[in-house]
Amino acid sequence: MAGVLAGRRVAILAADGVERVELEQPRQALEDAGARTVVVSLASGEIQARDHDLEAAGTFAVEELVDAVSVDDFEALLLPGGTVNPDKLRMEPAAVRFVRNFVRSGKPVASICHGPWNLVEADVVRGCRLTSWPSVRTDLRNAGAEVVDEEVVTDANITTSRSPEDLPAFCERIVQEYARAARAVGAGGRT
Amino acid sequence: MAGVLAGRRVAILAADGVERVELEQPRQALEDAGARTVVVSLASGEIQARDHDLEAAGTFAVEELVDAVSVDDFEALLLPGGTVNPDKLRMEPAAVRFVRNFVRSGKPVASICHGPWNLVEADVVRGCRLTSWPSVRTDLRNAGAEVVDEEVVTDANITTSRSPEDLPAFCERIVQEYARAARAVGAGGRT
Repeated sequence: MAGVLAGRRVAILAADGVERVELEQPRQALEDAGARTVVVSLASGEIQARDHDLEAAGTFAVEELVDAVSVDDFEALLLPGGTVNPDKLRMEPAAVRFVRNFVRSGKPVASICHGPWNLVEADVVRGCRLTSWPSVRTDLRNAGAEVVDEEVVTDANITTSRSPEDLPAFCERIVQEYARAARAVGAGGRT
Repeated sequence: MAGVLAGRRVAILAADGVERVELEQPRQALEDAGARTVVVSLASGEIQARDHDLEAAGTFAVEELVDAVSVDDFEALLLPGGTVNPDKLRMEPAAVRFVRNFVRSGKPVASICHGPWNLVEADVVRGCRLTSWPSVRTDLRNAGAEVVDEEVVTDANITTSRSPEDLPAFCERIVQEYARAARAVGAGGRT
C-alpha cells in the first residue's frame, strides 16, 4: 500500500493516558502508506502514554493544538484509546467540536478501544454501527449507536475496533478507508 | 456523629485505578462514625490506587470478592471514582449486579467523580437527579439521569458528588444518609 496516502495529512487527537500501541501502530501504518501524521492535543509539550492503562509508557510530542486547527487542515482523523485519554478530551469543547466537525465533514474518522467516547460526546453515533472496548458499549448504545462485537467495523465514514489485539486489522482497514477517501476527492492533497 | 453507624457494615466497591482520596476519606469518615467498612473488589490481593488518575498512589487490601458477597451482607454501598476503576468494574457482571441490587434494595448508595459510571452500567439512573465528574455527565444523561452541577446531591437512596474537592460535603452527607437509613430499619445491625 506504499504511497496510497502520499501527501495526505492525518490528525491523531490524543491526550495524557493514551494507550501507547494504539497511537504508535496506526501512526506507523499511515506513515508507511505515505501519510503525514500530526499529533494534536490540548496543551503544548508532551502527552503521557500508558500500557494497559496503568503502566507508564513514555511520551509523545504534541505537534499542534486542537484549538488552533480545523478539519480543513487534514484529510482524516484518528482517535486512539486508553481510558484516561478520551476522558480528558471529551471535557474540552474545542476537542469535541473538532471531532463532531470531522465526522460531519464526511472525511474518514477511525477510533479504537476507549476512543469512541469522543464520538459519544460529539453526539455523532446515532444510528451508526460500530464497536469499542467492552466498557464503552453501554455508553455507545445509550447515545444511539448499534454496537457489534467485531474486530473492525466501517459504517459510512467511521471505522472502529475493540482493543490492541485488533490493531493489525484496524491498521489495514484505516489505510484502505483513508486511501478510498483520498481517491474520491481527487488526486491532489496537501504536501 | 461518632457512633451513629455503630455496627453497620458498608461495602466499598473498587478496582485498580481507584482515586486514593475518594476511598480513604469517605472510609475514614464512616469508620469515625462507627461503621465497619469492607473493600470489595474483583480479585483477591490488593488494588492499585492513583492520585489524579495518572500517578501511582499505593494500594488498598481487598477484603471480600464481589462474586462472594450479597446486598444482604451490608447496610450501605460506596462507589469511589478514578477513571480506570469504574471502567474495570462495569465490565464484570457480578459487580454490575451487586450495584443494581443495592440500588433496587433501597439501601443507601453513594458515588463520587467517575464512580457513577457503575450506576449507568447497572441502568439505575433513569429519572434520578445526580452529579458526577464532568466527563461522565453525557453518559449519565444518555442513561436517563437528570444531571446537575452541585457539590453533593441526594435523590431517593443515591448520593453523588463531583470530585475530590467535594469530599468534605460528600463525607458529611453519606454519614447522615447512612445513619438515617440505619435508624429507619431499626436499632439493630450486624456486629
